[in-house]
Amino acid sequence: MIAALRARNPIKPGKLRLGIGDDCAILRPNAGDELAITTDFSLENVHFRRDWHSPEAIGHRCLARGLSDLAAVGAKPMAAFLSLALPKELTARHRGKPAWVERFFDGLLALAAKMNVPLAGGDTAESPAHKGKAGLVAADIVLVGGVKRGRALLRSGAKPGDLLYVTGPGLGGAGAELLALERNPSRFTALKVAAPGHPHLYPEPRIAAGLRLRKRGLATAAIDLSDGLSTDLHHLCGESGLAAEIDATVVPIHPMAQLAEAAGWARSALQLALHGGEDYELLFTARPQTKIPRELDGVAIHAIGRMSKMRNGKPAVTLLEEGKAVSELRARGWEHFRGSSSD
Amino acid sequence: MIAALRARNPIKPGKLRLGIGDDCAILRPNAGDELAITTDFSLENVHFRRDWHSPEAIGHRCLARGLSDLAAVGAKPMAAFLSLALPKELTARHRGKPAWVERFFDGLLALAAKMNVPLAGGDTAESPAHKGKAGLVAADIVLVGGVKRGRALLRSGAKPGDLLYVTGPGLGGAGAELLALERNPSRFTALKVAAPGHPHLYPEPRIAAGLRLRKRGLATAAIDLSDGLSTDLHHLCGESGLAAEIDATVVPIHPMAQLAEAAGWARSALQLALHGGEDYELLFTARPQTKIPRELDGVAIHAIGRMSKMRNGKPAVTLLEEGKAVSELRARGWEHFRGSSSD
Repeated sequence: MIAALRARNPIKPGKLRLGIGDDCAILRPNAGDELAITTDFSLENVHFRRDWHSPEAIGHRCLARGLSDLAAVGAKPMAAFLSLALPKELTARHRGKPAWVERFFDGLLALAAKMNVPLAGGDTAESPAHKGKAGLVAADIVLVGGVKRGRALLRSGAKPGDLLYVTGPGLGGAGAELLALERNPSRFTALKVAAPGHPHLYPEPRIAAGLRLRKRGLATAAIDLSDGLSTDLHHLCGESGLAAEIDATVVPIHPMAQLAEAAGWARSALQLALHGGEDYELLFTARPQTKIPRELDGVAIHAIGRMSKMRNGKPAVTLLEEGKAVSELRARGWEHFRGSSSD
Repeated sequence: MIAALRARNPIKPGKLRLGIGDDCAILRPNAGDELAITTDFSLENVHFRRDWHSPEAIGHRCLARGLSDLAAVGAKPMAAFLSLALPKELTARHRGKPAWVERFFDGLLALAAKMNVPLAGGDTAESPAHKGKAGLVAADIVLVGGVKRGRALLRSGAKPGDLLYVTGPGLGGAGAELLALERNPSRFTALKVAAPGHPHLYPEPRIAAGLRLRKRGLATAAIDLSDGLSTDLHHLCGESGLAAEIDATVVPIHPMAQLAEAAGWARSALQLALHGGEDYELLFTARPQTKIPRELDGVAIHAIGRMSKMRNGKPAVTLLEEGKAVSELRARGWEHFRGSSSD
């Protein structure tokens, strides 16, 4: 498998001097660059289900989780590493059809090619059977990116008065598509190629938008929306030592979330937008005088609120409607399938 | 758990600008340095067993696997990242006793402190129960090291005529201690602190020796012995495009391997030394005219053979006795517990 991957993923001249096949991969950063590094688990029955998700979508999502963390700090991807544990049956071809693991790599490497990031190494192991039951898939993705020294976008950089923005066509889409998947997984198994407009199955990490925000000095702080707006905004507030207000009437809502509400799968599209996780959009802050374009690299940008000082007795995040406080917004991002916490 | 780790593992000024708590960790490499990066799984029932290994030894071994890969390329450790999936029960204290996961981090962080490498981030998840059975522990360690540009020790650098060396007090010790552990695991559960002389439970990655070899320009190629001498030497031969000869009479044999032979647990101590895995010593090559000291930083160095050109019909690795070829040495490193392949 390692030899096959090596052949499929040749080293191109560039930042990666040495890839799969030695004790370590060797990366050559640009002079003056810092390295941004993130690791993310994708575990069967925690982050995906093999009876719901195609192997291609699982591979795509695995890499997308890590890329989204790089996007959040404004880093340019240099290399990815994958540790992959599989039950043996998933490495076998049946009647000439590609093995599960080949299709997993089809999905992962298609996104890697699109984002121009080489798979530089990792580890493989057989996932052990346990008390007579077949083992589960466990994938850990590591992403390394470069960012100019001292210029990474951090969660901790927001200032009182900064405005809050989100990228993308609207929030809650991933949560809505998951609700549809739960109800009728067989409708989705044919989706073997990353198609736009599938926020749960094929999320689009906002690498280009993150790079623009950082290089043009537009943002003061940023985080990616993996746990859901309410939870991730609390993280940003916590690290910046600030409170925030969100205007519910301007939070962009993904068309799929509207559809989930219409179908009766969710009580309200707004709730999906506020608490549905895994949208992998960027949430960022900018000084009020900074002119933020309506879109960055074709990705829409929406103002949704502002940062303020923390005060005793005041909630960390308040939900407004037309300028009036209506409720406290508690962190209650969805935890899909089962509990999992993540950077 | 993340907050507790952050408190236990404060960021010191240095290469690590930003650790646990943001989307990515940020590392600042030295000017002109390249980055060496490696990832290694430690999976329950593949790489360890919870009824055989103390949590401290599992944590130590998890980090040691990654450090040993950095040692093999002559890199200086900068930061470690850990993705850890656990069944929920292992995070709970019982009757005031530390939780399993606390003891795991005791072992991991003790080695990290000794090697001066901060734990800079990672991911945590609950290991899912599967068909009514409790989940298994899965840990993926990522190590990042710095190495002067173009100077990393690679598997591919050996030349015909180079001599072959191994570090350490002898090979086969880890395999021998594992044989003892198999027979009587309860004898070993009290070993909660890394003690010298426990090559399986508390291996000592050869970071200092690897750095010396690289900085003093002594070695032409190197690999760490994780799969066993026979297998890892085949890897080195393959990447260098060469054959090798090993003199069986000078391969250093660990005292524990002698003991395992005396106890009747292994057919021969030499077989343990040739094929037993996880010794985590360094195997390296040097030009014949290079003077190699008898020890580096207190670690013994032994010459065990030489590299030669590949010839049709000649085995890649030949075993000699007193200068005469006696047999082909096939790659058959031990795969403990179950199959696992690894960089």
